[in-house]
Amino acid sequence: MNESNPTLAVSTVIFALSRAENGAPGALRLPLVRRIREPFDGRWALPGGPIGADEGLAGAAGRNLRETTGLNPTYLEQLYAFGDLDRSPAERVVSIVYWALVRPDEADAATVGENVRWFAADDLPELAFDHNQIVEYALWRLRTKLEYSRIAHAFLGETFTLAELRLVHEAVLGKALDPANFRRQIESSKAIIATEERLTGGRHRPPRLFRYNQSVELTDNGPLTRAEAAS
Amino acid sequence: MNESNPTLAVSTVIFALSRAENGAPGALRLPLVRRIREPFDGRWALPGGPIGADEGLAGAAGRNLRETTGLNPTYLEQLYAFGDLDRSPAERVVSIVYWALVRPDEADAATVGENVRWFAADDLPELAFDHNQIVEYALWRLRTKLEYSRIAHAFLGETFTLAELRLVHEAVLGKALDPANFRRQIESSKAIIATEERLTGGRHRPPRLFRYNQSVELTDNGPLTRAEAAS
Repeated sequence: MNESNPTLAVSTVIFALSRAENGAPGALRLPLVRRIREPFDGRWALPGGPIGADEGLAGAAGRNLRETTGLNPTYLEQLYAFGDLDRSPAERVVSIVYWALVRPDEADAATVGENVRWFAADDLPELAFDHNQIVEYALWRLRTKLEYSRIAHAFLGETFTLAELRLVHEAVLGKALDPANFRRQIESSKAIIATEERLTGGRHRPPRLFRYNQSVELTDNGPLTRAEAAS
Repeated sequence: MNESNPTLAVSTVIFALSRAENGAPGALRLPLVRRIREPFDGRWALPGGPIGADEGLAGAAGRNLRETTGLNPTYLEQLYAFGDLDRSPAERVVSIVYWALVRPDEADAATVGENVRWFAADDLPELAFDHNQIVEYALWRLRTKLEYSRIAHAFLGETFTLAELRLVHEAVLGKALDPANFRRQIESSKAIIATEERLTGGRHRPPRLFRYNQSVELTDNGPLTRAEAAS
């Protein structure tokens, strides 16, 4: 067997919810970086690059997030390692991909650098390398995890109304959901807990605020959580 | 930033169900390889090593499985990439870990090489590198996936009795399950479908055979399934 030691890179898919006109959660979008050298000079790509000698994999992904958006990671998880033989034209590159989820208030505070632009997650141009496939996979995982974990929480504050939670699900799934069905499903899943608080404002019957059931894990890293946090 | 290009390795956690005395699924075990050089000379480790110049990541993991057990992969999935700074004493190594699941009949046919031995998954010695942590994480993922996917199928034939399915769950979870509760839960999950067949044998009331609902995915690679198969 001829051994190969590929170049290792870390890339990060940064999903954010923009705000709709009325301040509610809007569409799912992500920042991309325009490449300024070959291969794929001029094409848009996921933020990423080599690993620093003194940082772990999650550390490199957190740096991607900071350098691209000025934000510090609150939700960051390893997605998948991509290593097909032909994914980079010149040299062999294996990319370990993380994903970050960014709340609307964090996205408001983001300051994107030169050569960075936000794109709608479901309407991307042809990206460099296999990055379209990577985003497609990240979207699939996000939508799958929405069904069995409290991942939508990463897009919300500590407390939220059922309408806000439904808007997050609608943005991630890319389709409208029936409010009554949604309420029934989410309440029967025991994923959220009603608080005694209600949304403040001048309304006659302000809606109740909910919080996530903390016994359901936000990320499913299991025994890895501490190791990841330390790297 | 000082860049670093770590050495890349692929390692594979190979979970098999041994047979109990009566031929039913028994305990969960995995093959380990004794290291014959530093670091960790003489310690047991997960099968693995460098990637071949002409193989993908899953291809390298499949080769690990073949070289260690003589088996060809039927269930093989990427688990996680481990890249903590201090996980290898001499040089920096990032390991992309796969897991393979092996049925009892496949395990019967396995031929392990020199320096390979089967160990009970819940009673391992101190392994080389961070391999104890990797196995702990793989066990956690296996147990978690058991709850929401048809992963137990990877340890069973096309059809099986409810008792056989329960024995697989018991082996993976490492605890006895109440047969009546198990039957209720598995039937309400719609994960399995009753066939018209019954177990052959001389019994008065042979138990009914079930099969998994094919609309529930075995692996959750989503859009990646084809890419992985091709690599």
